[in-house]
Amino acid sequence: MALIKNISVQIDHLLHHRDDQKIKKILAKLTLEELVVIINSFTRGKKKLFRLLKPEVGANVVLHLNEYSRHQILKILTKTQIKTLVKQMSSDDLADFIKSFPEYRLQNILDVLPKSILPEIKKLLRYEPESAGGIMQTELVALPKNLTPAQAIKKVRVLKDNIENIHNIFIVNHQKHLLGSLNLDQLIFASPKSKLSELMDKDPLKVSLEVDQEKIAQIFREHDIVSLPVVNNKNVLMGIITVDDVIDVIEQEHSEDMYKMAGVKLIEHIHDPAHVSARRRIPWLIVNLLTVFIVASVVSLFQGTIQQFVLLAVYMPIVAGLGGNSGTQAITVMVRGMALGELNFAEAKTVILKETTVGLINGVCIGAIVGIFAFLLNNNVYLGLVITLSMIINMMIAGLSASLIPLTLKKFKVDPALASSIFVTGLTDTVGFFVFLGLATLILI
Amino acid sequence: MALIKNISVQIDHLLHHRDDQKIKKILAKLTLEELVVIINSFTRGKKKLFRLLKPEVGANVVLHLNEYSRHQILKILTKTQIKTLVKQMSSDDLADFIKSFPEYRLQNILDVLPKSILPEIKKLLRYEPESAGGIMQTELVALPKNLTPAQAIKKVRVLKDNIENIHNIFIVNHQKHLLGSLNLDQLIFASPKSKLSELMDKDPLKVSLEVDQEKIAQIFREHDIVSLPVVNNKNVLMGIITVDDVIDVIEQEHSEDMYKMAGVKLIEHIHDPAHVSARRRIPWLIVNLLTVFIVASVVSLFQGTIQQFVLLAVYMPIVAGLGGNSGTQAITVMVRGMALGELNFAEAKTVILKETTVGLINGVCIGAIVGIFAFLLNNNVYLGLVITLSMIINMMIAGLSASLIPLTLKKFKVDPALASSIFVTGLTDTVGFFVFLGLATLILI
Repeated sequence: MALIKNISVQIDHLLHHRDDQKIKKILAKLTLEELVVIINSFTRGKKKLFRLLKPEVGANVVLHLNEYSRHQILKILTKTQIKTLVKQMSSDDLADFIKSFPEYRLQNILDVLPKSILPEIKKLLRYEPESAGGIMQTELVALPKNLTPAQAIKKVRVLKDNIENIHNIFIVNHQKHLLGSLNLDQLIFASPKSKLSELMDKDPLKVSLEVDQEKIAQIFREHDIVSLPVVNNKNVLMGIITVDDVIDVIEQEHSEDMYKMAGVKLIEHIHDPAHVSARRRIPWLIVNLLTVFIVASVVSLFQGTIQQFVLLAVYMPIVAGLGGNSGTQAITVMVRGMALGELNFAEAKTVILKETTVGLINGVCIGAIVGIFAFLLNNNVYLGLVITLSMIINMMIAGLSASLIPLTLKKFKVDPALASSIFVTGLTDTVGFFVFLGLATLILI
Repeated sequence: MALIKNISVQIDHLLHHRDDQKIKKILAKLTLEELVVIINSFTRGKKKLFRLLKPEVGANVVLHLNEYSRHQILKILTKTQIKTLVKQMSSDDLADFIKSFPEYRLQNILDVLPKSILPEIKKLLRYEPESAGGIMQTELVALPKNLTPAQAIKKVRVLKDNIENIHNIFIVNHQKHLLGSLNLDQLIFASPKSKLSELMDKDPLKVSLEVDQEKIAQIFREHDIVSLPVVNNKNVLMGIITVDDVIDVIEQEHSEDMYKMAGVKLIEHIHDPAHVSARRRIPWLIVNLLTVFIVASVVSLFQGTIQQFVLLAVYMPIVAGLGGNSGTQAITVMVRGMALGELNFAEAKTVILKETTVGLINGVCIGAIVGIFAFLLNNNVYLGLVITLSMIINMMIAGLSASLIPLTLKKFKVDPALASSIFVTGLTDTVGFFVFLGLATLILI
């Protein structure tokens, strides 16, 4: 990695001096992996660097770039490069690849596809991108059940050139109904006289076309498998999902969870240009604007109180800040637990009660510290009391809402990660200020 | 899933009525997967349910529970159950399993281990848990280079019983130095007269013992592999890492990132009891207490200003809230991008400049909205101006700090996810209030 850093600095320097020949020389010496890391990491130089690669190397690099870089590079690909690329892709990668092109270039791609795979690809393009159908590949090994291991190996040998890394074999009948599955190692080590029908696992794990990718990732995680067959509602084998695609799914779901909680669109990338990022983030800030206006209007109810007792304005950020952050803690544990499939609705009440109790405990501890501090500093026991009480209430509300909001969203089939910090902090600010300034009006004024 | 929910509700009911016999009957009908989901999801009933399983089923269930549930169950395992469990584990799982026991029960476990594997396991226990050495398994297929495919298959057949799911074969010399690797399917389809030395990939991907698991996940992601050999500094083959372990690593790294950003300890679980969660979250809230006290002390500088112009207290939450949330957006994109290995220090300046520009753009847009609103509502153009200006500055600071802090942490080899929302919101609150109230003092008073 240290080496790549040095090369990056060197290339950056050469880009500034437009020394294309020297860059070409450096790039020619790098491995595929190094090229990918370097092109991903450059913002402005990305396209320039890509143009300096040999076409066949470039084609290979594109396949391994991250989404944003790929998008940038796709814009400048030539027809020949697209053709070179297409030849190397499995059906699922190809479908994803086609989807990543802008609309107006779609015909370009369809033109260079071999006629034989066109119908297959068009079918794949119709599935929901985040369903089993959307992430499966159609290249797989399906054999009839009455073969011997030797016959099966012979058949697989013929298919091998078109399918990378065969780990599993599927057994189907004439109507392509899935009957069972077999690991490649089981095939090799089986007794020569046995039939596939005796060797196969007769009740293999499988999913139907519409199953969501998050559920699929969970199945891979729980069963330590490297591939999973996909069937339609008549149990006809339609494709397989491989573990490398599942790793991509898991990464994508993670980004989605984190991004949703922060109010960032999934598509955003660290190297996006500023104006693009700004445009993508602003809708969520406008939602945030609504929540802070509600908060502000609560405060405005108590202008008289604040004017008489201006110290309240000093303690307001403390009440709000700790309420918001204890809410963020709770919601992170909730959202992550739910994403990992660990929440059971039968126990929803227990969890809500738990989070409210955590709020109570920490509210008492933290509220007491701040209260005592305020009392000592301002020599006013009532101020200390008001602060302690309102922090306890606010942190309980934080726990309650941080557990209730994602559970409710889930119940209505909305992603719980959307119960982002913006809503929780909006709620804790509103309640926190109302309770704090309300109690102050009753007790201090 | 709907079915499991019904069963959970039913079990919950039976637990309340202490009808153990009926629960036993229900549990006996469930699959391993269903049992795992149900036991994971119960809080108080967990141990009770486990006691109602047949011992050999229970042993299998423990292996698939989540970390928290496993920890709870481990406390009540009998020696016989531990023995049953140990038999089914590969070396890496066994090492993890042993590490998850509380100290005082360690001898229990070591007592029941077969003498033959004891030295192996003790060695594994010494590696850093998050390094290649810590996550690798020592069960693997290593063969000499001069074998023919048929001879190799014969050898593998002998080893097969001890190793689950063989996908790759490694070629070593007498000193166990790694010479190459081979996929199982390459072995099957090779010409019978060839030698492993001709078939093997002579420059296989490999990692050394101390490589961090995050880096390893990146290698699996980029190369779509199912296993990766681990070597020591003399290129001696020490173990392999399999893709199912990598999926666990990715999930763990992701929880870590989310949790760190929210100030929650990694070990925390959705079903932890309230007092445990409360204790785990409070240290971070105390850090938060320090940041909000700084914020409060900035506000206290301007008590006179607020007293003269109490509307400022109403607009304070708006300035702070939007600064904090635009900072959270930026930091999420940064931390996620860095976790996926997409950031290049050579371009750090560009990224910092970008985030500051995003802050500027969105600050102008959002600041203008709030400023115009404040002007119209209070008929005071200077108030509008002060708000707009301070929101622009605050959102620029948010972008600057959200990019600068994680980059700096990374430079000093601290996890950038620790640049949590607490620090960014602390900073934006402090700067935001200082600028807002400072400008107000200069312009409005």
